[in-house]
Amino acid sequence: MFYPTGMKKEYQSNVIVYKNRGMSLESLINDANEFYLENDTAVIYKKPTPIGLIDVDYKKGEIKKAYFKEKSTFDYNGIYRGKYIDFEAKETKNKTSFPLSNIHKHQFKHLERIIHHKGITFLIVSINEEYYILKGEDLLEFITSSKRKSIPYSYFKTNCYKIETSLRPVLNYLKIIDKIYFEGE
Amino acid sequence: MFYPTGMKKEYQSNVIVYKNRGMSLESLINDANEFYLENDTAVIYKKPTPIGLIDVDYKKGEIKKAYFKEKSTFDYNGIYRGKYIDFEAKETKNKTSFPLSNIHKHQFKHLERIIHHKGITFLIVSINEEYYILKGEDLLEFITSSKRKSIPYSYFKTNCYKIETSLRPVLNYLKIIDKIYFEGE
Repeated sequence: MFYPTGMKKEYQSNVIVYKNRGMSLESLINDANEFYLENDTAVIYKKPTPIGLIDVDYKKGEIKKAYFKEKSTFDYNGIYRGKYIDFEAKETKNKTSFPLSNIHKHQFKHLERIIHHKGITFLIVSINEEYYILKGEDLLEFITSSKRKSIPYSYFKTNCYKIETSLRPVLNYLKIIDKIYFEGE
Repeated sequence: MFYPTGMKKEYQSNVIVYKNRGMSLESLINDANEFYLENDTAVIYKKPTPIGLIDVDYKKGEIKKAYFKEKSTFDYNGIYRGKYIDFEAKETKNKTSFPLSNIHKHQFKHLERIIHHKGITFLIVSINEEYYILKGEDLLEFITSSKRKSIPYSYFKTNCYKIETSLRPVLNYLKIIDKIYFEGE
């Protein structure tokens, strides 16, 4: 069951963005994507949460009963520097590790497919109030080479790419994507 | 206001697929996308219909009141032959022309952005029980060079790419995408 968190507009005032308090990872990414769209940097959207309809009044255009469905893909996709980009954002309150139960089985299959088709795919993981990019290829290697059910915090510090927060956008994750995937171009 | 039509499972039996009767354009595209996914040809999904939530019982995970929201992008996107692909499907019952009111203003903006970022973008238009690929670039040229509020049927026959239906998938639209965008590669 998924509960969409939605972007809270009140968190968008400059003071709070600057302090970067209380903004969910989703809000930070939506904010960055809006910035990229305005500046012609990239076209990346969050996919709407899939809904199963049970009772709809089509005359009024009103949904009277529905439920949240499970996703089989990642939340965000789009185009950047001519490349297909597809990723998921995950937050954990766990301080020592990131539980792999956060990712569904069919999402791993999706990850494999995107790599196979030469897309750019990764997770943005928020752990200990830090933000890391975990490459899809590294995630697959981790789950095939280890029997651990979680990724230790130390793994992120050693093997992942930290996103330093800035003024606008706060979470300028494409800056790190440039370094990982486009260095030398 | 958007009403999702959904894929009707009863239309998936072989006989009816073969006869290709009564299948909505959306069903034909979903069916093709499933085929492409199974055969590792492409990863293309329909985006879920965006929903605005009004009343949700989070304990039960039940949506008690919601409404359909307007889209600012196209319905389908994904990756094919390493390229970003982004398109919309439109059916018209009008026999002489395709009304441009079918496409929203912000969807034209979206189209421009995808072209700017070098993605593959187009419409699949169903008119007179035929299926055409209308390139995003051609659509933009049409609306800037003409003051018409609809695209005449003859335009499709002369300037667009017809998708001939086949056995499986019935609407093998990527075959035409190969010709338009990948010829000579």
